[in-house]
Amino acid sequence: MKLIVSVVQDKDSNRLSTALVENDYRATKLASTGGFLRAGNTTFLIGVEDEQVSDVLDIIKENCESREQLVAPVSPMGGNADSYVPYPVEVQVGGATVFVLDVDQFEQF
Amino acid sequence: MKLIVSVVQDKDSNRLSTALVENDYRATKLASTGGFLRAGNTTFLIGVEDEQVSDVLDIIKENCESREQLVAPVSPMGGNADSYVPYPVEVQVGGATVFVLDVDQFEQF
Amino acid sequence: MKLIVSVVQDKDSNRLSTALVENDYRATKLASTGGFLRAGNTTFLIGVEDEQVSDVLDIIKENCESREQLVAPVSPMGGNADSYVPYPVEVQVGGATVFVLDVDQFEQF
Ligand code: NI
Ligand code: NI
Ligand code: NI
Repeated sequence: MKLIVSVVQDKDSNRLSTALVENDYRATKLASTGGFLRAGNTTFLIGVEDEQVSDVLDIIKENCESREQLVAPVSPMGGNADSYVPYPVEVQVGGATVFVLDVDQFEQF
Repeated sequence: MKLIVSVVQDKDSNRLSTALVENDYRATKLASTGGFLRAGNTTFLIGVEDEQVSDVLDIIKENCESREQLVAPVSPMGGNADSYVPYPVEVQVGGATVFVLDVDQFEQF
Repeated sequence: MKLIVSVVQDKDSNRLSTALVENDYRATKLASTGGFLRAGNTTFLIGVEDEQVSDVLDIIKENCESREQLVAPVSPMGGNADSYVPYPVEVQVGGATVFVLDVDQFEQF
């Protein structure tokens, strides 16, 4: 038995939840911030059999992998025109940090 | 040293906290959702000596074990009378999912 | 690879975050309550190489170690004058509980 601890962006959290449920994996979600990823992320705890680890890692990768995304320009607020970028810019979104831990003992009551 | 990670329903969370304190165990609680149990659960982190694991598992089982409970009928809101059940129904409540992890090193500062 | 799980008082949480970032360590923070420390604490998840563990433990100790602090007297509310202490008192603040877990597998997507 392994416990997969995965930190993903809030943006990808619902999609990952849905994909895990569709594949019969059960996850507990903890609201988290900062650190491995930019502020606003979710920490998933997923308990799986040893032979399911690579399947779950594939699901996390498919749904959360870091990618570039075009972001439309936003009009500057409060006259801070210096930092205004008048064209869409590519930003990095998504990404997942995953720790797989060995489980000594697993119980369900 | 072991770290016990236990996901329990919010409903049983206070009772488990009290029972752990009464037995001199200290737990950290994290608000969590979904997954192992229906929405609204609490993840307990409990650090214990190896020989205390079975005692803590007993306490979790006694306070959180899955059981059936009679729920009184609720009058339908908004006229959704189709799904109205006019007699008490048994629902499954409680339940705990527990992972015991080995601790490499433990420190208190 | 190790996963350091550290529970610290909210009071020290920002200082620890800053110190970790300054030393190029990345942490995920989870809001937590009770247990190892008095109510209102933060659980840090910090993934590090095996040889970085002692450095991170030093940083946690420096920023969160339990210490005494003088607290100014507060005027009694609601006439509960019996428990009023008219001079500053020393209270214990801070403190960290740290679990170091071995990581089986680490992935970043
Ligand atoms: Ni195993
Ligand atoms: Ni041990
Ligand atoms: Ni390692």
